[in-house]
This record gives sequence, structure tokens and C-alpha cells, in this order.
Amino acid sequence: MTVTCFGELLLRLSPPDRHLLVQASSLDLVVGGAEANVASALAALGHDVRFAGVISDNPLGDRALAALRGSGIDTRHLARAAGRMGLYFLEAGSGPRPAAITYDRAGSAFALARPEMIDFAAALAGARLLHCGGITPALGPGGVALARAAQAAARAAGVPICFDGNYRAQLWAAWDSDPAAILRELVADATILIGNHRDISLLLGQSFSGEGEGRRREAAEAAFAAFPNLQLIASTARHLVTSDHHRISARVDARTDSHQTDEIDVTGIIDRIGSGDAFAAGVLDGWLMDGDLAAMAGRGLALAALKHSIAGDMCPVSRAMLDDFSARAGDVRR
Amino acid sequence: MTVTCFGELLLRLSPPDRHLLVQASSLDLVVGGAEANVASALAALGHDVRFAGVISDNPLGDRALAALRGSGIDTRHLARAAGRMGLYFLEAGSGPRPAAITYDRAGSAFALARPEMIDFAAALAGARLLHCGGITPALGPGGVALARAAQAAARAAGVPICFDGNYRAQLWAAWDSDPAAILRELVADATILIGNHRDISLLLGQSFSGEGEGRRREAAEAAFAAFPNLQLIASTARHLVTSDHHRISARVDARTDSHQTDEIDVTGIIDRIGSGDAFAAGVLDGWLMDGDLAAMAGRGLALAALKHSIAGDMCPVSRAMLDDFSARAGDVRR
Amino acid sequence: MTVTCFGELLLRLSPPDRHLLVQASSLDLVVGGAEANVASALAALGHDVRFAGVISDNPLGDRALAALRGSGIDTRHLARAAGRMGLYFLEAGSGPRPAAITYDRAGSAFALARPEMIDFAAALAGARLLHCGGITPALGPGGVALARAAQAAARAAGVPICFDGNYRAQLWAAWDSDPAAILRELVADATILIGNHRDISLLLGQSFSGEGEGRRREAAEAAFAAFPNLQLIASTARHLVTSDHHRISARVDARTDSHQTDEIDVTGIIDRIGSGDAFAAGVLDGWLMDGDLAAMAGRGLALAALKHSIAGDMCPVSRAMLDDFSARAGDVRR
Amino acid sequence: MTVTCFGELLLRLSPPDRHLLVQASSLDLVVGGAEANVASALAALGHDVRFAGVISDNPLGDRALAALRGSGIDTRHLARAAGRMGLYFLEAGSGPRPAAITYDRAGSAFALARPEMIDFAAALAGARLLHCGGITPALGPGGVALARAAQAAARAAGVPICFDGNYRAQLWAAWDSDPAAILRELVADATILIGNHRDISLLLGQSFSGEGEGRRREAAEAAFAAFPNLQLIASTARHLVTSDHHRISARVDARTDSHQTDEIDVTGIIDRIGSGDAFAAGVLDGWLMDGDLAAMAGRGLALAALKHSIAGDMCPVSRAMLDDFSARAGDVRR
Amino acid sequence: MTVTCFGELLLRLSPPDRHLLVQASSLDLVVGGAEANVASALAALGHDVRFAGVISDNPLGDRALAALRGSGIDTRHLARAAGRMGLYFLEAGSGPRPAAITYDRAGSAFALARPEMIDFAAALAGARLLHCGGITPALGPGGVALARAAQAAARAAGVPICFDGNYRAQLWAAWDSDPAAILRELVADATILIGNHRDISLLLGQSFSGEGEGRRREAAEAAFAAFPNLQLIASTARHLVTSDHHRISARVDARTDSHQTDEIDVTGIIDRIGSGDAFAAGVLDGWLMDGDLAAMAGRGLALAALKHSIAGDMCPVSRAMLDDFSARAGDVRR
Amino acid sequence: MTVTCFGELLLRLSPPDRHLLVQASSLDLVVGGAEANVASALAALGHDVRFAGVISDNPLGDRALAALRGSGIDTRHLARAAGRMGLYFLEAGSGPRPAAITYDRAGSAFALARPEMIDFAAALAGARLLHCGGITPALGPGGVALARAAQAAARAAGVPICFDGNYRAQLWAAWDSDPAAILRELVADATILIGNHRDISLLLGQSFSGEGEGRRREAAEAAFAAFPNLQLIASTARHLVTSDHHRISARVDARTDSHQTDEIDVTGIIDRIGSGDAFAAGVLDGWLMDGDLAAMAGRGLALAALKHSIAGDMCPVSRAMLDDFSARAGDVRR
Repeated sequence: MTVTCFGELLLRLSPPDRHLLVQASSLDLVVGGAEANVASALAALGHDVRFAGVISDNPLGDRALAALRGSGIDTRHLARAAGRMGLYFLEAGSGPRPAAITYDRAGSAFALARPEMIDFAAALAGARLLHCGGITPALGPGGVALARAAQAAARAAGVPICFDGNYRAQLWAAWDSDPAAILRELVADATILIGNHRDISLLLGQSFSGEGEGRRREAAEAAFAAFPNLQLIASTARHLVTSDHHRISARVDARTDSHQTDEIDVTGIIDRIGSGDAFAAGVLDGWLMDGDLAAMAGRGLALAALKHSIAGDMCPVSRAMLDDFSARAGDVRR
Repeated sequence: MTVTCFGELLLRLSPPDRHLLVQASSLDLVVGGAEANVASALAALGHDVRFAGVISDNPLGDRALAALRGSGIDTRHLARAAGRMGLYFLEAGSGPRPAAITYDRAGSAFALARPEMIDFAAALAGARLLHCGGITPALGPGGVALARAAQAAARAAGVPICFDGNYRAQLWAAWDSDPAAILRELVADATILIGNHRDISLLLGQSFSGEGEGRRREAAEAAFAAFPNLQLIASTARHLVTSDHHRISARVDARTDSHQTDEIDVTGIIDRIGSGDAFAAGVLDGWLMDGDLAAMAGRGLALAALKHSIAGDMCPVSRAMLDDFSARAGDVRR
Repeated sequence: MTVTCFGELLLRLSPPDRHLLVQASSLDLVVGGAEANVASALAALGHDVRFAGVISDNPLGDRALAALRGSGIDTRHLARAAGRMGLYFLEAGSGPRPAAITYDRAGSAFALARPEMIDFAAALAGARLLHCGGITPALGPGGVALARAAQAAARAAGVPICFDGNYRAQLWAAWDSDPAAILRELVADATILIGNHRDISLLLGQSFSGEGEGRRREAAEAAFAAFPNLQLIASTARHLVTSDHHRISARVDARTDSHQTDEIDVTGIIDRIGSGDAFAAGVLDGWLMDGDLAAMAGRGLALAALKHSIAGDMCPVSRAMLDDFSARAGDVRR
Repeated sequence: MTVTCFGELLLRLSPPDRHLLVQASSLDLVVGGAEANVASALAALGHDVRFAGVISDNPLGDRALAALRGSGIDTRHLARAAGRMGLYFLEAGSGPRPAAITYDRAGSAFALARPEMIDFAAALAGARLLHCGGITPALGPGGVALARAAQAAARAAGVPICFDGNYRAQLWAAWDSDPAAILRELVADATILIGNHRDISLLLGQSFSGEGEGRRREAAEAAFAAFPNLQLIASTARHLVTSDHHRISARVDARTDSHQTDEIDVTGIIDRIGSGDAFAAGVLDGWLMDGDLAAMAGRGLALAALKHSIAGDMCPVSRAMLDDFSARAGDVRR
Repeated sequence: MTVTCFGELLLRLSPPDRHLLVQASSLDLVVGGAEANVASALAALGHDVRFAGVISDNPLGDRALAALRGSGIDTRHLARAAGRMGLYFLEAGSGPRPAAITYDRAGSAFALARPEMIDFAAALAGARLLHCGGITPALGPGGVALARAAQAAARAAGVPICFDGNYRAQLWAAWDSDPAAILRELVADATILIGNHRDISLLLGQSFSGEGEGRRREAAEAAFAAFPNLQLIASTARHLVTSDHHRISARVDARTDSHQTDEIDVTGIIDRIGSGDAFAAGVLDGWLMDGDLAAMAGRGLALAALKHSIAGDMCPVSRAMLDDFSARAGDVRR
Repeated sequence: MTVTCFGELLLRLSPPDRHLLVQASSLDLVVGGAEANVASALAALGHDVRFAGVISDNPLGDRALAALRGSGIDTRHLARAAGRMGLYFLEAGSGPRPAAITYDRAGSAFALARPEMIDFAAALAGARLLHCGGITPALGPGGVALARAAQAAARAAGVPICFDGNYRAQLWAAWDSDPAAILRELVADATILIGNHRDISLLLGQSFSGEGEGRRREAAEAAFAAFPNLQLIASTARHLVTSDHHRISARVDARTDSHQTDEIDVTGIIDRIGSGDAFAAGVLDGWLMDGDLAAMAGRGLALAALKHSIAGDMCPVSRAMLDDFSARAGDVRR
């Protein structure tokens, strides 16, 4: 079964050894982007994955393309265009110092792309799912047009949509935008929403006063009421014990049912960037392979936890590693 | 006092920065092997150590030889032969992701060596101890012959034997073997056995139903009963709090006495490969220098704990570092 | 137009900074193999390329797979099997010190593969060419069977064959082989042969006494006479001025025509491994795109020359870089 | 407002990846020195900082100079002289293995400098503070003369002095010295003393029998009694939970008032060298900007805590990072 | 004597070991920019140098600032502003493969800066020279305004101007520009022009038909005729033997005199980026220190040649290294 | 046959990638020292080699010791003492920029050692040769005493002496010394002198006016006349074509005979430090193995040439590599 992912690819540049940028004489380079991270995690688990989008027609675009391909993703629907690659600079944190991201993605070839550059119909032909999300429309009017075009093509082809909220206030604030209205329109197409009660509050302009699971269920029910197409909502809750020790749990809500996992400890954190995308990929793996809520939440949680131990934005966890996952690490595997 | 160690040298190749192999564009190279690790730890403590074995007559063998020599080990009894060096690839783990080893040691020059390639009599002349163990015979019929030849030479020379169980199920499973019978035969020669109740269960085909220290003593007594030459059994117990935080204790059993240490916390783990060999070296240091059970258990525990903080398979801890050890790290030493 | 390549993938491990292995504390890792190098160079030029073969079902195999995929190669016909990946260790040379290779490829999953593990018919469906060569049969009887199966499938599908001589005396010497007879059988299927007068001498058991171009033509005519299917023979001549300064020329012989390039200087050599494979890829690019002898020789020479300036076994030269090639490097391209 | 710092610059050489020196094939190089660390932290916070001292007139001195300048420090009063740069070699610790420093600073250009090499009057013209401390006089009679000259110039210019105790027993023990007498003489000039009850005990030859805050206040009062010019005493208390998890608190005593912070957890420690200097810088930032005790103790504690997460001796924390500090790290800053 | 330089700072990101971007997993980071390179070379020679400009108020701007300061440059006139840092990606070439630059500098904080952000009058107070050039106006109308403002301030302050042609066709082509007219206007203010006959052709819309020195003198005389303020024209001629072996000569023309150096061989090239800026700095050093044409041409040639052996954009060559320069490298200096 | 080498071990610290020290954020660490380089080259060729000397009793001394041992040298006669290790900082050159060394070796444990710390009689027992040279006495009166003691022990034991001139003007200039007198006294003991006509001029206070081989023979004959024990004089002549291309030849003079090699080109130079020591080792290998002048000169030249292609001070060239040497590098060795 084929999954089509659509979004922007970014290059991440990060000082090694948790140095600050002001100290750096080299930067580690990896390729990421929310939807690409989901795509590569699904491909690592053995799914057929296509990636649709637009990247620069320069060597930086070549580098991004090689990363996607190296992950086993079908990139025939990834267009090339003049313009720059979006970049971001990450200073990894430690202890009392939080990680810090400096974005440099404005004016990218993707952000300036026109929908007709991408053959969405071909990219979606025979697909079981379109995965996209809230970053693309946040990039500006062009991004909104791209997001609409992708979703329209999915609707036309009868392909269900998974929409990852991924609300980025900074991006929306950079132009004269109405994020709630635009996101409502896009989420209205979705079968699956990745997002928690705060995302739903933002969409519906409504706050949820409860606590913990109750508030999450309340928010989910409000979303199901507002979006008739929506069948599933998946989210994580994260509690920071220290910057190197988090506790996370996962939850999937259906219209008439839900599944909430236990909270697990994540220690020895190497790189938490992309853990939300790994969660989304785990949820989708559960949806594609099993379809039950416990599998979706459990796979999402496992992949999210494992991502913390893996450098880079992407999560190249094999099916065997995922199946072996336990919240408490075992000993050396020989 | 001279100690002779005998076994296979391996090259370990490991992605830096806890990367996965699939992400690696370089691999860190160190030299190891259970008996070589013991040898180098003893040499670092100031003992005269000889290493007997067979390594490749190619540049990889040169590299292994340089590592042993650099540790201060007498390598005049290390033969060179055509064939490959055994390798293993280590993906260091973190948090929820356990370390994973991919072995590539089949068909090595050592595994294919004939006993007459090594002058065991010369290697053991005047030695106070032969250290060997359960990996060599697990390599196949050739390995069994090597192990028998080494131990026969020690018996002939009146040199006591320390045998480290190091049971490797994968290796035994790769050929038509009877590990318990072979290991029983070899352990029967030993004065010192490094191994816990599970090793003894395997040797004797007998399970020990108790808990904790009681079970360990029960197993030790069964081993003493089965192996009349055996005088000492040393073992550790390890409890994984997280993959980066272990708790370990050490125990030495004599025929009529035993010593059990407190459990200590080991945090900030850099590399736990070789910590069992460091334990063996610490036990032997206690045996060579003091002879009392508390010193053997305490030195073993200290060296094992320190090994977790040192990169590589080997444990180049000096006498001063060992003497300074405390279960709770002190401040910067200036 | 699709090209199918078939052969063994290898991991290359090499000390950085032209160090010797005996000095190394890390090794740079790249993926190569003669046919994979051709495949990746053709893919970098924009051709549709499939790779057929067998790699290990372990993380080293994953690494090799990611490299092929990252090059844009279709790996759906690359089977996975138990067993080890072939390795080789390269000490890059400099000045008076020649590069040195230590092979560690015996007993690989590929060398031990059975032909039925690979669906050659599917791998060749619709292909314009099969590229294979003389290393596979040199691996042993199993390799001979693989080579025969691949070529039989190509004959059955009417797909022309390019056979790269790549004579490896060490490999043939390691078993009871008749290389000339086996290679003659395989070359008999080929439309294109990559090989010079020494390769032809070996095949035909005949020496060519002339000098330079005359001898090369004489050898080519002998090969055309011996192999009725053969239409083209491509070869380079290399003259080592110093280890860092070579002079190379290229030549393509057809049955009734030939093209010989001028000799060009190659300086600033970073890595000459794979330059022969880059030559083959350039020749095939000329054959696929133009078909005339000058284009084949010229593209082959250009790609071979450029490869010397690129680290690794593979040659990721884009169409634009190839078109821009001149024997004398220009200034910085901005 | 300008601060003038005076002391020795050192080059720190440290094996990467927490390796031991005996394992090292490269060493990371940073520039430090207690007073230089304070200077650079103050400059990073936006203060005008001058550094007075003497460094070698060789490329190592150039390297040190570039580091100071890169931190934004005015180095016009840093003299150059023949002689060596002081070095120190740091083996970073982990878990049960404490960090270890091997000093190689004897006979440096600074230690051998004559006071007239430095134009202290110019370096202090218009300054709001002179920061110096107890390492300079510990270097030998020449160091004592330098320290006296610097403080005499400050007295002459009416510039208040902050003196950081930084008692180094090894240095004092290397020559025929009376550290208490010399330090008493120097502290007598100071308005601010960085030091705890142990430093004061040493100065006054008097022990303080209480516990915790009581003992600290008792010591402070004794110091205020002994040194009429002294207005402020700042100190930290550190509790080592493990080598990777410390708990620290800060305290500032005035003649009639004091402020004691809560103890905070510091985890994920990358490099604790220089955390005491960061504390001093934070205290001075509070003194320069606000003047109240709580600000001094809080800024000192925050800067000290953040330093543990930053590689190198220096602490390039910006005003914004300092203001954002919370004892519990927040999530990724985007 | 103080020199004020004005222009854009750029971050350069470059794969290590002459890798291609498509192969890179890390990028070396250095700071450059034509005028910054001149500034740092002059500072390394001991001149007082100020840098005026605008950089980002983010950590990348901090990094650039630290590099300038580390070079000993006075950065008090370098403004900070919202917006991105200009970047460029360099693939170093080798042998037949030329270096390739991918620019990513559009929309930088500098390109979008308004002249009033910079206090040019203060930056030029008491300066002996303003160094600027042709890249700033090529950035767009904003760049033209910046360039005009800087030169107007210099005229107002009576500070002579050195203008480095640095014609960048790509930048001028990116907007609706008339480069010749704009550059003519700016060069009209200059006392010194760094540029060869091609630059002058472009300025004057006139071609110079001669060969070698004759053509250069002809062009110089045309420029002197067209620009009454112009007193000196300095240029290099470069002949590429191979990409690793160039031959360069230097020339300085005055109104009534000229000096042409011999051509020298430059081999062992590590990094030729910035060699033109090093030339300019050498010319200016000669102008500032001696004033005679031979010194200007000789210093320019020496600094340009030395730059080829130094990694990075900048040229931290000390006065002693410059004085020691000989066209033929001597042996190891001890 | 055993060779005993005596001298100081040094740690060399060098910026990677031919960077300048002012640019360095890490330094590559290797171990060297003229006599240690000879020792390790002889050990790599299979000779039994002992090293006598004194190194620090700190981790830097441990590092030096591990390097010697890793080379296969018997270090039982290497004493440990308080004090520092001698260091030197190397900036590798390129093209027009010569390599530059900053020494930091004053006051080392070796320079301050007393002769009785070393058991020269034991170190020389049964040795075929003592190798020492002119650096030790240059270190000061203590070095002179060490050199005299070593040579006295050799005379007493009837062990021939090879003395490598290694004249270091800087070291002799640092104290009130009479180098010619001291060196004459020491050379008077030698059977073999490594040194050219300039060394002999210095020893004898006599200049040799001829050219090339004539002058060298004239100088040799003067030395033979002055030093009755002297039997052999070995030297190289080096001609720098560029910094990356040298031409070298070797010569050995006996009392009644001589052998002069052809001059060979050395290109692709990675590291020429230690090439003189490699020459000495090659000469001694010829002397130990064959004894004829042509073998001595040829082996010396070969090892010296190969050293240029090997990073570090030492020359780990195996017997096979030496035998394979040809002045023109061959192709890849597989």
C-alpha cells in the first residue's frame, strides 16, 4: 500500500557536540522537513512511499533528493525549480540550556512554487493515503495554494488525508494571514488529524477547560463535531523532567472510542527534533497495518520514543527495531 | 608476575556519535576481544602480560598488533597467519534504543588456526596464570582444539587457569556443537571461573531456583562440587535502571567463603562493551596482588564501573586511577 | 531508457587523510563495487538504472542499499540474504607510496547466492542494456552460475550485454578455476566489451606484439573475429607520470571503425578507485545517447578524468558537470 | 561601563569524546584562564571589557589573542613577550571517572613577566572595576609582583577591585611561599571577594564550625571584620549527586544583609570547567546592572548553571539567553 | 593609520575534503566577504581596521561578528538588523574539476539595509582610507544606496576611497540594473581602483585590443582619463597551468608610472577563494606603508600567493610571514 | 640483532588540514623525536629495538610510551620522572608557505634528567648498535651529561655508536654553549655519522669549497682524518623544486669507498618531518642487514622518500613496503 507525502524539504545545519553557533567551525548537515520525516519513517518500516513537492535545482536540492532516495522513497513526483532550499540552524541544548532553532526558510523554491509544477494526480494514483499538514499553508499565499491543490487532488482521487497540525506561529505571523480559517478549511478534508487539544482550540477558537485525558477527549469530540470527515485524532503529551529526561504518552481518539497509553520515560536523549513526525509515522503504520486504536497509539509512542535516540530529523527505524521496542531498554543485542 | 592471556583479537567498527550504521560515513576503529581486553587492563595496572594467539598477516593484523603492543603487552607469542581478522560492528545505543552488534568474525585466521602455530609452552613459561575462556571453543572444532591445546600446555607447566565463561549462544549455534560438554571439559581444568549462576546452570544442566545471593551461592557450591580443581568463582549482577544508568554488584565465591559487594550506581555510560572483561581483570589483579576475596570483588567492581566511562573495548585504567576509585565520582582532579 | 546493472556491492573502509591502516583510529565508509559504480554514474547522468544482486540482510546491507538508492537507482531487484557483506580496506597512496587494497570479500552473501534468489527476468524487462563483468565469475563456482544466469536472462529477453573485463587475478587464483575459458564463454554473449589488449590477450591466449594504437587495433580485430556478437570495444590507456599526475586516453573500436582520443593530464588526484567504472559509464552514456564512437570515447574519458577528483568509489557527476568538462580545469564556477 | 580583567591566558588541550589522553590522536583546543573566562562572559553580556596581561609572541599567543578578541574583548592592553604559553590538558570525566587536569603552565611568558610590561594605568583608565584573583600570585614571586602592581594601579585610579580566591594549592606548593599572608594583603584591597568559607578560613587561619548557611554567614562576618574595604562576598555551594548531575546554590553576603538562592539541579553536564568563573561574571553583571544582592546571586547562579551546558572554558551566553534562563529547561526554542 | 572597510559579511559553507555537496554530511564554516577579507588581512598586518556594515541580529550574525573581532577588527560600526545572513556554498575543486559556488545571499539583512542604519561619519572619522567595491551596488537598489551613502560620507570627510571592481554579472542580472552607469558613478569617487582591463572595459564600454602589459597600460590610461580622481590602478593576471598550479603576476599603474612584477608559480593550492582580496590588502599595505608602486605590486602579489596556501576566505598572514615570503618556498621554519 | 636508541621523546601538536595555529580548534597529536623516529622505523622493519630515555610520569608520558610500544619497541629502559613532556607545534606548509615549527620543549623531564636515572648498561647489553645524536647535548649541560653517559656506556660495552648530527642552532643558542667542541667530543666515539658537509664544517670549523659530490667527499675525508673511530658517513642532498616537490639523493662515504645514488623526485608530500630520521633508519638497516654502501644509501633513500607520504613523525614502513619501493610509484596494489 502506497502513501503519498507532500511538503517542504529542509536542510538542517547544526554545530557538532552541542556547541553553540557562535563557537562553530563546522556544521552537521541532515535533511528533514515534517512530511519528509514521516515519509522516511514509513519507508524504513517497509511501506511504499512517494514524496511530492518542489526542491531547488541546485546542489543543495541534489543533496536533499539523495537523502529522500536513500531512505527508499519514490521521488519521481518531486519537482525541481529555481530558487533556494529552506534551511534551519539548530543549536542542540543540554541540561539547563534548551535547544534553539534559527529558521532561514523564507523565499524557498517550495514556498514560491506554483501548484501546477507538481503532478498531484500522478503522485496520488493508487495511493492509500495523503500525508500533509499545517506548515505548508503557513508559508504564505503560495503555500496555501499548494496545500489546497494537494488536498483537492486527493479528494478527486478518493484518497484519504492525514493532516498534521504542526502549528507554527512564527510563520503565520510573517504575513497577513488568518491561520484558523485556512487550517479549518484544510482539516475539513482530513480523515486523520495529528494534533492535541491546543491545535483543536486554535482551529475552533474554543478552549477546553478540563485536565489531562478528559480535556483531550472533550477537544476530540468538538473536532469530530466540527469536521464530519474526521475519523481519528492522534496526539502525544510530553512532560519535561529535565532537558535530557522526558515523559511521553500517546492517545488516539476515534468518534466512539479512544486509546490512551501509559506514560513512559525517555532518557539519554540524543535528538528530539522529528519525534513528532516519528509519532505520526507510527500512528499511520498502525492505521495501515492493523487499524486498531491501541496499535496506532502504541506504534506512534514507540517510534516517537526511539526517535529521541537517533541523530537527525529522520527516523530510520526498521520493522524489527520497532517490534523489539520496550519502554525499558534491554541489554546489548548481539 | 606474568599472566598469559589467550584468545582472538577482533577489530571493532562503530559509527561515531551513536549513529546507526545506515547513517554512517565513517566508523571508529578500536581493537578488542575478551581476553585481549583482560590482558590490556592487567598491563595497564602494571602486570607483565603476554598474549598468545594468531592474527592476520595483513595490515589489519598489524593494526591489532599495534594496539596490543601499545597497551604494554608482550606479543612475541602472537603468531601471524594468512586469513582475515574477525570484525564486529557496534551500534552504540541510547535511552530506549539498545546497543546492537553485528558480528563478522566467521572464518578468521584465528578460527582457522592450528594449535601448532602457537608455542604455548613458551608463552606459558614462568607464568603465574593462564587467562582464557568460552569464546575460543565456540568458534568451531578448530577453536575447541586451540582451547584444549592452550589448557593442556598450562596443565603441563603447572600454570593455574582462569576461565571466563563468556557464553555466546550464536557462535555455538552456528555449528554442530555440544557446548555444555565442551565447556565442562575446559572448566574442569580451571582454578578460577568467571561466570554467574546462569553460566553454571548451562555447564551443569541444572537450574538454581533461589533468589539473589542465595541462588548465587547455591550455584557456586554446585560448581565447586562438580569441578574439583575450581577454587574461586567471580561474577557480577547488573540491573538496568535505564540504558544510561545501571546498578552493578560483584561477588566472589571460594569453597568455604564468599564476598558480596554493595550494589553501586553507574551513570554517564560511554561504552559498556568490555566491562565484563574489566571485571575479570580486576578480580585477577586482586588475586595476584592480595588474594583475599574482598579485594578481588572490590577491584573487579571498580574496574568494571570505570570501564563504562571509557571508550573502546579496552580499559587502560592505571593503578592510581583504580586506587582513587569511589562509587561516587569526586570533583575535577587537578 | 533503462539500464540494468548486475554485480556485487562492497563496503570500502579507508583511513582518512591518507593514513596507513596501522595508524587508523577511524575509517571512512563508502559503498562501491564495479557494477554499482557504473550504475550510480549512469543514474547521476539521468538514466533509469536498475541494480540486480544480493546483499546481506543486516545493517551493513542496509547501508549499501541506502547508498544505491541515494544515487537514484531502482533497487527493487536487489535481494537480501543471510551472510556477510564483502568489504575492502583501502590505504590511499601518495607520491612514492602506491595505494594498497586489502580485500575481505570472501564468503559474502553475494558470493554464496544462488541464481534463483534474483528475478533476472523482471530486472531486465524493458531494459536497453545489461551491464555486468568479470568480477562476478571470479568469485567462485557460485559467481559463475550467477553470471551465466544473468546473461542467459538477457539473451532470453533480447537485451544487449556490456561486459567489463575487470580481470582480478587474485580472485581467480583462490579457487580451482579456468578464467580464460569462463570469460570467453561470457564475453561471447556481449555486444560491448570494456577491456584493453591485455584483457583480450588473456581471453584469447594470444599476445599482441605491436605498440600503442596499432597493438590495440590488432587486439580489437582479434576479439571481433573470436566473438561474433561483439560490436564495440572500449578501453583506456594510462601513463603514470607520478602517483599524483597521470596521463590517460580513451579508445573505442568498432568492427570497421575506431576512435582514439588525445591523451590528457589528470592532476590533483583525490581518489582514482572507480575511474575505470566511470569510464565504462561514460562510454555507455555515449552509446545510449548518441551512438557514435567519438562521443563514447569522449564521454568515457571525461567521466574517468572527473572521477579522479571525487572521493569515494562512485562518480556522482551530473549531466551539466559532464558537459562542462574540459581537459584543462577552468576557474571557480560561480 | 568598563571592566578591566587581569590574569593569565591558558590554552586548554583536551581529547575529544571524553577519551583519555593515552587514547588520543587529536586534542580539542580552547582558550581559557580564570580571569579571561570572566572577561569573555561579561563581554558576551554586552559590557565593555578590557583584558590586561602578557601572552607569548608566538602563534600560540596569536591563537589566544584571537579568542579573546573574538569574544569582543578590548585587548590593547595585552602585552606580548618571549616565552611559552601556559597549557593545561583536560581529560573530561564521566560517571564514576572524575575529570583530570594535567597542568603544564610553569615558566610561561606571563609567569615570568615583569610588571612594567603592562600599562596598568592605561588599562584601568575610566574602568568601573578591576577583576583579578588568587591564581596570579600563586605563580611565584613574579606573579606576586604582577598582582601587587595591578592592584596598586587600581587603588591609585580609584577603581574598585573584585578578587576571586581561586586557591590553587599545587601552585603555591611549588615554591617557597606564604599564601595566606600574600592573599590577605591582596584581599585587603578588594571591594568584592569571590570565595566561600574555606577560602576565608585559609585567609584568616580560622575555622568555621557551623553548618550550611550559618557557617557561611559566620565566615563572611569574619572576613568583613578582617578586611575593612570588603563590601561583598559571593560564593556557590555544589553537591555532586553523580558526576553528571550536580546541585548548586549561590549566596551573596553584604555587611548587613545577605541573599541565598534555592539549590537547583544541573544535569546533562557537558563541561563544568569555568563554571566558577561564569558565576563570578554573573555576580558582577548583577553588581554592574542592578546592585542588589538577589540579582547578583541569581545571575551568578544562572550563568554558572548555563556554563555546564557549554563546551570550552568560556561562557558566551548572551543577555537574551541569561534572561530566558530557568532552572528547568524549556522546550526547543524556535 | 586607520582603514575603514565597508561591505557585506557572508558565511561560507563547504564540504570537507573536497567532497561534493551531494556527498556531504557536514560543512566547514568560515566567514568571508570581499571587504571583510581585505579588512582582516590588513588587521593581521597590524593596521587599525574598522568594519562598517549590517549583519543579522541572530546567532549566525554573532558568528560572523566573532570572526571579524577575532581578526582584530574594530566592529563598533557594524550594525545589527533583523533578516538573514548571506550564505554561499563552496565545492572546492581538484584537478579537472573546477570549484563551484552556489550563492544563497539574496534578501540578506545587509542587502535590505537602509543607509541610515550605519553611522558612516563615525566609521570614517580620522580614517586614512575607505575600502569598498562593486559587490554592494550589485545587490540591488538598496545596495546602490548603501554604496552611495558610504562614498558620500568619505567624500564629506575627505577620506580617500579604494574601490575594488569585483564585477559579479549574476548579481547585476538579477535585477533591472545598469551596472556600467552605477559603477562609473562610484569609481569616479575613487583614488585607487582594484581591477584589470576587463573591468575598465566594462566601465567605459570600450575594448582594449592589445596584448599583455600593453593592453593593461592602455586600459589604465583610459581609466585615468575618464576618472580624474583616480591615482592608482592595481590588478593581477592569472594563468591556470592546472587547477592546482597557477601562475600569477601583479601590476600597479599610476598616472605617469607603472610597475609590473614577474610571474610566479603558485602550487599546492589549498584555497584560492579570497586571493583577490588578499591582493587588494597587499596593495593597500604598500600604499599605507611605503607608497611606491613596486612595494604595492610586490606586497599584493605576495599576499595573494600566500592566500592560496591558507584555508578559508580570510588571509591571517602576519607581517613576519609577509616579509619572509619568497616565490619559492623555503624549508621548514624552526 | 638489537639496536638501542637514546634520546628525547616529544609530542607533536599540529592543526589538521594544513590550517594555521591561529585558525585551529583542534590539534592532531603524534609522538616523535629524532631517535624515537629511527627506533620505530627500525622496529617496523623487524629489528629488535630498545629505547632508552626519560619521559614524564603523567598522562602525556603515558601517551608517548604507548606510541613507542605500539611501534614494537622495547621500552623497559625508558625511565619515568616528574616534569613536563617536550612539545612542538607544527604548522604544515603548502605551496609558497613553508612549514613552521614552534618549539615548547624547554625544561622537560628529559632535559632535566640525571644520567643515573637510566640504566645504560642494561639498555646496551648485547646490543649491536647505539643510535643517538646531536639534539640531546644541545638541550643544555644536563643533556651533555646524558649524551656523555650514554656513549660512555656504549664504549664500555663495546657497542658501536651511530651519531646523527641533527644540529639545532636555536637550542645551542639558548645557553652558554660551545657546540663544536661538545659535538667533536661525542662524534669522536662514533662509528657511523649521519651528517653532510655542513655538519662536518661545523664540527671541524673548516669550510669545503667544492661543489656537489666533490665537496661531500672532501668533507668526508676531513672527518675521517679528524675522527679515527669513524668508518661511515651518510647524508642526503635535497633540492626543493616546490614545497610539494623535492628532489633527493643519498650518499654513503666509507674511508676508501663511497656510494652516491641518483636523485629522485618526491611529489605528493604529506609530511616531511622525520624524513631525515627515516633516512638514518634505512642506512642502519642496510648496515645491519648487508653492510655494503649501496644497500645503505639505497635503503636510506627509499625510506626517506616513503616517509614524505606518511603522516606523523614516525615511519611505519614494513619490510615488504620497503622492498617494493620504486622511485616512480606504481599503480594500486591489490
